[in-house]
Amino acid sequence: MSRFLNERFQPLVAYTPGEQPRDMRYIKLNTNESPYPPAPQVVAAMTAEQVENLRLYSDPTAKALKEKIAARYGVAPESVFVSNGSDEVLNFAFMAFGGKGAAFPDISYGFYEVFGDLYGIPYEKIPLKADFSIDFRDYCGLGKLVVIANPNAPTGMTIPVCEVEAIVKSNPDSVVLIDEAYVDFGGETCLPLTAKYDNLLVTRTFSKSRCLAGGRLGYAFASPALIADLEKIKYSTNPYNINRLTLLLGEVTMDAEDYYADMCANIIRTREWTAKTLEAMGFTVLPSRANFLFARTPAMDGGELYTQLKQRGILVRHFSNPRVCPFNRITIGTPEQMETLIAAIRDILGGAL
Amino acid sequence: MSRFLNERFQPLVAYTPGEQPRDMRYIKLNTNESPYPPAPQVVAAMTAEQVENLRLYSDPTAKALKEKIAARYGVAPESVFVSNGSDEVLNFAFMAFGGKGAAFPDISYGFYEVFGDLYGIPYEKIPLKADFSIDFRDYCGLGKLVVIANPNAPTGMTIPVCEVEAIVKSNPDSVVLIDEAYVDFGGETCLPLTAKYDNLLVTRTFSKSRCLAGGRLGYAFASPALIADLEKIKYSTNPYNINRLTLLLGEVTMDAEDYYADMCANIIRTREWTAKTLEAMGFTVLPSRANFLFARTPAMDGGELYTQLKQRGILVRHFSNPRVCPFNRITIGTPEQMETLIAAIRDILGGAL
Repeated sequence: MSRFLNERFQPLVAYTPGEQPRDMRYIKLNTNESPYPPAPQVVAAMTAEQVENLRLYSDPTAKALKEKIAARYGVAPESVFVSNGSDEVLNFAFMAFGGKGAAFPDISYGFYEVFGDLYGIPYEKIPLKADFSIDFRDYCGLGKLVVIANPNAPTGMTIPVCEVEAIVKSNPDSVVLIDEAYVDFGGETCLPLTAKYDNLLVTRTFSKSRCLAGGRLGYAFASPALIADLEKIKYSTNPYNINRLTLLLGEVTMDAEDYYADMCANIIRTREWTAKTLEAMGFTVLPSRANFLFARTPAMDGGELYTQLKQRGILVRHFSNPRVCPFNRITIGTPEQMETLIAAIRDILGGAL
Repeated sequence: MSRFLNERFQPLVAYTPGEQPRDMRYIKLNTNESPYPPAPQVVAAMTAEQVENLRLYSDPTAKALKEKIAARYGVAPESVFVSNGSDEVLNFAFMAFGGKGAAFPDISYGFYEVFGDLYGIPYEKIPLKADFSIDFRDYCGLGKLVVIANPNAPTGMTIPVCEVEAIVKSNPDSVVLIDEAYVDFGGETCLPLTAKYDNLLVTRTFSKSRCLAGGRLGYAFASPALIADLEKIKYSTNPYNINRLTLLLGEVTMDAEDYYADMCANIIRTREWTAKTLEAMGFTVLPSRANFLFARTPAMDGGELYTQLKQRGILVRHFSNPRVCPFNRITIGTPEQMETLIAAIRDILGGAL
């Protein structure tokens, strides 16, 4: 830290992304990436001519991509925002709508509190229930920015749309942000509610179900006025926020929905097999609708299992938060990768099983 | 605007990027893009395998790219920051180092005051001298964040490194940011001063001399402590800020310096021809070391010339600020594009020449 840094930021603890070690080739089950590549037509869209056109700026209005997303989801382009990964929409939303404070679950995406700290927003971390579910009544009538990942991370658990609606309805003067990064793996979207409530913001990403984590593309749905606020923040920080090629790949992605539906179905199938297999081995596995499982074994500490898997070339994600430290978050890979994982766990736990 | 937007941002006037009209094909001389594509080896680096790997996140530490940039410029990787375009470094720098206020020229990159407004930073716009040059003494001993584009935009004019050093030396307790977006077209870099002064931040971009405007890649040099501050802000807003393919293209770009040196030489040659030709037609042309010219004619209002060029399919950039509204900023294109421009201007000005 330099002596020049604004003192507001001096105590700030930044977000820690999942590790990306380079000492050997790992089976990466730690950052919820897709084990499948983007659709063939997406890969084919990257022609030499497109790369040559990188000499030109990207379209700051992202007009063509917004139109594709709008058509796909049956909303107006004015109700769509696109961003440099969904972290960027989250960042802008905390900045724009966090003025009266914020509230989110104590166990959720770790970035929410970083945004709160960054902007000096007082926030409340509301404990999940003992079974790791969200009690929607805890979020009703708060009158501040409510942020809920649905499905939640790292639990993978969902709350029903009718409960989201109750939260949105009871906070008419503040924004409710539903982070649907993982919705395509069996969750239920709140998107239709954006037509009815002007205080609902639904965020999405191309990183998970659209196999484009490295492309950095997020999007969001809301009333046109909320979207206009996000655009104002964008044009005041980084108008050309999205790579020109990523805009193009995003457009082609929207035309390849069959492929992505198949990949999601694969992941759901593999998730169910993995959950059942882990349960048969004595694990507690939370009921996930995401592309990961959150699981613990009575036979071994979560941190220890994480370490032993890493030694065997398999990365999962372990969180040190005391409430969840018995667990590991395991991204769903290919069936072969999950078989390798299961074999490694059997090997590690050995006689304890 | 929604009723939810933080009132701090309600009066905010966002940055206006150069227009990107789609009603016809224009000769685009309005956003300082390169008329030349990226180097052939950069284009060739974009293989199908790389596109398939977009399923994986980019390296948030950008280790390989930082090492390439560090090696190329003879600094330590800890002294290098990389970002989603140089606008992102500027954004982070205002956020991190603007606490005591900011100062920059009244005629410069229009984004500086937007960042000031965004973060509620009191800023001083210091008038350029009558000849549009910067008097370095105006920036000495201010004790706040000083931001100077060198070469300046939209004038293209430079200040000598010894004058920058005087500014840096006289503001030991605040950061001096030198925006070198255009330095590769004949400017003189302040980079060596970063080894000597812990309060100097030098920002750069791949958008201009490296023909990658659409790739969104910026970089910066400073003392490791200043860089650590910028990293902290990055990891608190968007850790995966750069596209995975862009990181790769940036690395290959650093290995293709001969190509880019040639392209810069082409642009400098074309700039000198264009300046001489415009002067022979009665224009006043500021002495530019950038990839654009700032020019006025006594024969016609700047806005009118802009409009008539646009009708002829040529886009240049006109600013409404009264001090510069007689001028247009003209990006240097290929020799053929500049010949077309000159012919159009002759046609427009007709008998007035």
